[in-house]
Amino acid sequence: MSHPILTITTDFGSDGPYVAAMKGVILSAVPGAQLVDVSHSIAPQNILEGAFIISDLVDMFPPGTVHLGVVDPGVGTARRLIAVSVAEQWFVVPDNGLITGVTRKRPPSGIWEIANPAIRRSTVSATFHGRDILAPAAAHVLKGGDPAVLGPVRTKFVTLQNLQWKRDELGGAGEVIFRDTFGNLITNIPAEAVVSDPPESLTFDIGGVRIDGLVRTYAERPTGTLVALVGSTGWLEIAVTNGDAARQLSVGPGTTVWLRRAQ
Amino acid sequence: MSHPILTITTDFGSDGPYVAAMKGVILSAVPGAQLVDVSHSIAPQNILEGAFIISDLVDMFPPGTVHLGVVDPGVGTARRLIAVSVAEQWFVVPDNGLITGVTRKRPPSGIWEIANPAIRRSTVSATFHGRDILAPAAAHVLKGGDPAVLGPVRTKFVTLQNLQWKRDELGGAGEVIFRDTFGNLITNIPAEAVVSDPPESLTFDIGGVRIDGLVRTYAERPTGTLVALVGSTGWLEIAVTNGDAARQLSVGPGTTVWLRRAQ
Amino acid sequence: MSHPILTITTDFGSDGPYVAAMKGVILSAVPGAQLVDVSHSIAPQNILEGAFIISDLVDMFPPGTVHLGVVDPGVGTARRLIAVSVAEQWFVVPDNGLITGVTRKRPPSGIWEIANPAIRRSTVSATFHGRDILAPAAAHVLKGGDPAVLGPVRTKFVTLQNLQWKRDELGGAGEVIFRDTFGNLITNIPAEAVVSDPPESLTFDIGGVRIDGLVRTYAERPTGTLVALVGSTGWLEIAVTNGDAARQLSVGPGTTVWLRRAQ
Repeated sequence: MSHPILTITTDFGSDGPYVAAMKGVILSAVPGAQLVDVSHSIAPQNILEGAFIISDLVDMFPPGTVHLGVVDPGVGTARRLIAVSVAEQWFVVPDNGLITGVTRKRPPSGIWEIANPAIRRSTVSATFHGRDILAPAAAHVLKGGDPAVLGPVRTKFVTLQNLQWKRDELGGAGEVIFRDTFGNLITNIPAEAVVSDPPESLTFDIGGVRIDGLVRTYAERPTGTLVALVGSTGWLEIAVTNGDAARQLSVGPGTTVWLRRAQ
Repeated sequence: MSHPILTITTDFGSDGPYVAAMKGVILSAVPGAQLVDVSHSIAPQNILEGAFIISDLVDMFPPGTVHLGVVDPGVGTARRLIAVSVAEQWFVVPDNGLITGVTRKRPPSGIWEIANPAIRRSTVSATFHGRDILAPAAAHVLKGGDPAVLGPVRTKFVTLQNLQWKRDELGGAGEVIFRDTFGNLITNIPAEAVVSDPPESLTFDIGGVRIDGLVRTYAERPTGTLVALVGSTGWLEIAVTNGDAARQLSVGPGTTVWLRRAQ
Repeated sequence: MSHPILTITTDFGSDGPYVAAMKGVILSAVPGAQLVDVSHSIAPQNILEGAFIISDLVDMFPPGTVHLGVVDPGVGTARRLIAVSVAEQWFVVPDNGLITGVTRKRPPSGIWEIANPAIRRSTVSATFHGRDILAPAAAHVLKGGDPAVLGPVRTKFVTLQNLQWKRDELGGAGEVIFRDTFGNLITNIPAEAVVSDPPESLTFDIGGVRIDGLVRTYAERPTGTLVALVGSTGWLEIAVTNGDAARQLSVGPGTTVWLRRAQ
């Protein structure tokens, strides 16, 4: 593969030297790698937000792409680091639930613990395993290296329960995971939960407000109307036509969304 | 062309999965493409700011560069998407005025509507045409594809009236378009409007304050002085030597600037 | 070198057209260059923060890498622009102290003034030497060009005194240089100042609070504990286990940190 792609998702911010340090490590090992920043603005140590942001990358990138994700509140503790093969792509991450969204629809075809001291920077900092262990491991798979060199095969990995919405007999309850720059509120209720219902049979309650029905696009309602729709990433989102739902409702990530079906 | 360049300008923010999704689509179609982020911090749905930001990219990039711009409040409505050939480069944008700044000095040599369902992702989201229609179209021209495949030739395109300043017999009136990170206020008054006047014959009124004369660089005046100058992008800007004009004047985009010539 | 790497560090912000303009100039001269953004969020004209951010890049990047740094409050005045060879890499910067951190451990092997009018854009703006002079000079060395073409050799360069901490008989006094996105406070006290002391013999005073001892990693103390440690970049940092030290102490860059050794 002549142009191996590596995406990077972290909670490091874009204002420090940390992301560039990881890129230097990658490019030293894989000259010419194609680097793609996904986000470095994950809320500090918010694994759930990170899990959402990387959940659908595999649908957009070509086979062979490696996705490096570092949201790692456990750095310096005994938590594992893993390389996970999914849909002919790789995720190189701490084993803390960060790949929950990725694996919800696609079971991993292989999981390796990253444990080989030979695939590391010569000095490993106690606080920056992203640069010193994960980046070299990502470079290893990016070059097409044998994953078995990284460490032992694992069959289990940590998943986050709160990336799962809860179904009940009336419909179910989900949660806002991400507020985007437009103020759209992306929830953990997947498209599959609503696409087979007649759109007008659904109601959504959020922040003390009820939304009737599901629209297909923002523009179907007049400016200022609160709407529910299946967003471009395959999750239910709450939005305001030409407006900012987060501001209008004064809610954000963590807020409950109730889905009800007409009986 | 071995290293085709694609620039990307959006109002998507840098914290979500949207920009990476577009990049995945581009890189799947054009392996090895050189991607350059211009800005993803255009104020949501602010076409005027987007039009300013991309207005002079053609002067900096080599022939063959493709500029993808997505500020698209009309997504899901009947607005057109277009590919525009300007100065041996391409702009792939919604037809909503985003190319007003580009075309003010350089007439397009060709405009094609993006309408061919074959040049699209297999499933087109109702809310993310940037990823599903514009990115594949940009990839098509980036690969050197025939633009006629995209759709019919168009001769008209939307332009924004408020990217134009208004001349009058005393001088004219413009508007602040962009506040940069230093607090400099970039206006829609072009260099051409002032360069042939004696610098000391001009005055500028903004936010209730009068500025006498035009300087060549910030450093010509003592720290804290409000100055007017032709900025590096070819537009008149209002600045404060070693200071922040936006904060000092308490003004921002949308504020009127009056230009007066000594009679 | 088939994939020459250029890193870019500026105080331009990520929301304007300035960084893309520099990239266009670079890519026009060096097709296929690998561009890495370090930060564009240096506080406006804060040379000290810029000096910290670029101080350890040479440890991460391969030989031949060029680092372009533009924090340039003196643009338009007589300050020099220089190209500095350090550890088989290049720094292309204004001569205003920006390379102080780089050269503290590694003496430059050569310094050239950037003065040749032939290595410039055809029109040089009075306010954007980053694009018009520094970017062409960076492209010149990135292509492996002879540095002597840039201008005369120099033997002196400006260094910042306040990137140096002050030793005294009781220990010494340093300063917070950077607050990262987690609220960790990175200081100008280098690892060398503390690594040979027994960790429990040290105390640190900052913002009216005393911290006893040095830990190896955040996770050694319970959540909410204020700790001092040598961070991943080789500088002493003040942190809070699973928390935000800057917020907890209400301090930031410029705050004094006192180091005391048990007598």
